Amino acid sequence: MSRPGSEEVRRARVWLSRAVEPGSLALHRLLATCGPVEAVRLIRAGEAPGPVARMAEARRTADRVDADLADAERLGLRLVTPEDDEWPDAALHPMEVACALDRDDLAAPLLLWVRGAARLDDVLAGAVAVVGSRDATPYGRHVAADLGHELARRGWTVVSGGAYGIDAAAHRGALVAGGTTVAVVAGGLRSPYPAGNATLFDNVAGSGLVLSEWPPDCPPHRHRFLVRNRLIAAFGAGTVVVEAGARSGAESTARRARELGRVVMALPGPVTSAMSVGTHHLIREGALLVTGAAHVLEAVGTLGVDLAPPPRAEPTARDRLDPLARRVLDGMPAREPASPDRIAVDAGVPVVDVLRCLPALEIQGFVHPTTTGWRLTPAARH
Amino acid sequence: MSRPGSEEVRRARVWLSRAVEPGSLALHRLLATCGPVEAVRLIRAGEAPGPVARMAEARRTADRVDADLADAERLGLRLVTPEDDEWPDAALHPMEVACALDRDDLAAPLLLWVRGAARLDDVLAGAVAVVGSRDATPYGRHVAADLGHELARRGWTVVSGGAYGIDAAAHRGALVAGGTTVAVVAGGLRSPYPAGNATLFDNVAGSGLVLSEWPPDCPPHRHRFLVRNRLIAAFGAGTVVVEAGARSGAESTARRARELGRVVMALPGPVTSAMSVGTHHLIREGALLVTGAAHVLEAVGTLGVDLAPPPRAEPTARDRLDPLARRVLDGMPAREPASPDRIAVDAGVPVVDVLRCLPALEIQGFVHPTTTGWRLTPAARH
Repeated sequence: MSRPGSEEVRRARVWLSRAVEPGSLALHRLLATCGPVEAVRLIRAGEAPGPVARMAEARRTADRVDADLADAERLGLRLVTPEDDEWPDAALHPMEVACALDRDDLAAPLLLWVRGAARLDDVLAGAVAVVGSRDATPYGRHVAADLGHELARRGWTVVSGGAYGIDAAAHRGALVAGGTTVAVVAGGLRSPYPAGNATLFDNVAGSGLVLSEWPPDCPPHRHRFLVRNRLIAAFGAGTVVVEAGARSGAESTARRARELGRVVMALPGPVTSAMSVGTHHLIREGALLVTGAAHVLEAVGTLGVDLAPPPRAEPTARDRLDPLARRVLDGMPAREPASPDRIAVDAGVPVVDVLRCLPALEIQGFVHPTTTGWRLTPAARH
Repeated sequence: MSRPGSEEVRRARVWLSRAVEPGSLALHRLLATCGPVEAVRLIRAGEAPGPVARMAEARRTADRVDADLADAERLGLRLVTPEDDEWPDAALHPMEVACALDRDDLAAPLLLWVRGAARLDDVLAGAVAVVGSRDATPYGRHVAADLGHELARRGWTVVSGGAYGIDAAAHRGALVAGGTTVAVVAGGLRSPYPAGNATLFDNVAGSGLVLSEWPPDCPPHRHRFLVRNRLIAAFGAGTVVVEAGARSGAESTARRARELGRVVMALPGPVTSAMSVGTHHLIREGALLVTGAAHVLEAVGTLGVDLAPPPRAEPTARDRLDPLARRVLDGMPAREPASPDRIAVDAGVPVVDVLRCLPALEIQGFVHPTTTGWRLTPAARH
């Protein structure tokens, strides 16, 4: 819901979002100083500060605000701006910090074009970004889907891009679990990109959201994917890279996440797989190795609530013996009976300890006495 | 080569090695105080300090020194003791430190029974331990063999146990490369264990060494594997765990390596593999993720000499463009020609910059001028 009197502000944001590519620190600062309406006036009049003027130069004479809003209405898109109640201030807070620290290319979005009915701030209240290579292997797609599924099942939103491979698998896994998933895409929402994921985007928008910073008709230029990545990184409490080659956009998302103070995680794979070179590199550079949702939630979830179980096999009856009894048991010959003296020599423990341990070992079914000495039970031989 | 007058000392060590299980801090301290010959006298007389007396109690009346030495001679084993020139003092130094710090179960060996002609100190001068599960997967065996091969090819000795699975694969890889490999086993050298690796041990001894702390006839009791693991950990400048289940002896070797100040490394695998649960756990606990010999040698090799190449794909011609030229290129329509003004709007850069970039992009084969504007070359469309 928009606050009253904001229509002019909203139109100004739409104009600005076309005039200057997203993520600009210079425009962010100008807006902080004078607000969107005055920023538009300054740029149009050629009076904006140098960096902003330069970026907007080629586009400052155009005005497609009405056309963009009409496009959005026709396509069933909502325009969400910082003036709206559902604007995800909490999720975007690290970007404000980054801007305060002079970090370029990390400025918060001017607005978001949104497909889907869910409230943006609600959906992003507990979210994890899952990203990775388009050229994913069957292994990568499997574990991405599994991770998306498990995160969704535990009530977390999955955030990703809209690419083939890992992105699509993560969305699908979450959707299968009946979960909420958010696709942040790098071009306008008029033409789904890649077109082969059109049905997937429909499904994502059915329960979650498809988001873009670009006006509906903007093509997904290459550099826009890198700009878009900062939003994926910001929207997740942590970013998990599932598969990435030596050269992958997923690593840029991971870098953004680190710059924004988010938890960076990577999922390992076979060292023989070119698609795990990037994730292994990230782990070597400090990313947290995760093998599934339990590890992810331990890192981003509530402290002490979402602890992953340690990867321990159940202790066996032998494990539960005290070290001395275990040593006596180790000293028993495999098949023939033995006297306590002989066991003491083989095990290297005093006879008195052997005599003390044997009855306890008998009660627990490890040994039994015979007329010629003590011997292992068949079950204890393994 | 033994130093003169040491025969009595050597015999004392053989006696002690049977009387007290290896790794004992208490015996180590007694030896440091009074030497092996006097230690034997004290234990036999029942006058040794409490902990040593207790450990030796069941065995102190036996004397198999002559039998053990005869066994060794018959089997072609050498006895190497700290009195010998080839004793690997450097490799064992961390154990001395551990003993000084009161760490139990990490005491240096009393002696080593050795099969193979190579000098112990030479062989261990540049060595890496490669360990892992007996129940290795084909993936694990493949990468262990590959790692053993590559380490050997670069002149490093591979140290491992004698088990099936990862141990055997690492030895085999090193042997195929014509390298030196050391098997440290957990029982006496009279009966190879497991018997199925008998031929492998023959091959290991052909160019490298098979080592044991136990008299030739001692069976490989379970707890002896854990005691043996400290030697594998000490002998490698670093320990690489290739595969390990949730419950694996390889983790104990890794822990020993950490306690001895050695580099602990683990090789990741599919998160869907039970045999990578242990390696992933080690990495999460601080072990260095390695994907092959290059990473291992970067960690244990000579600083600045053995740097692993970063996992970067070759930069493309597009990567080498400056950001502005890349942005202009991104703004070019895929198929039709465009005017500089149009390109400036699409790319979001000033026209003057577009005009400056286009000739350079033409020279590099990305664009060419037509009568109706500039267009992408076919090669630049991808």
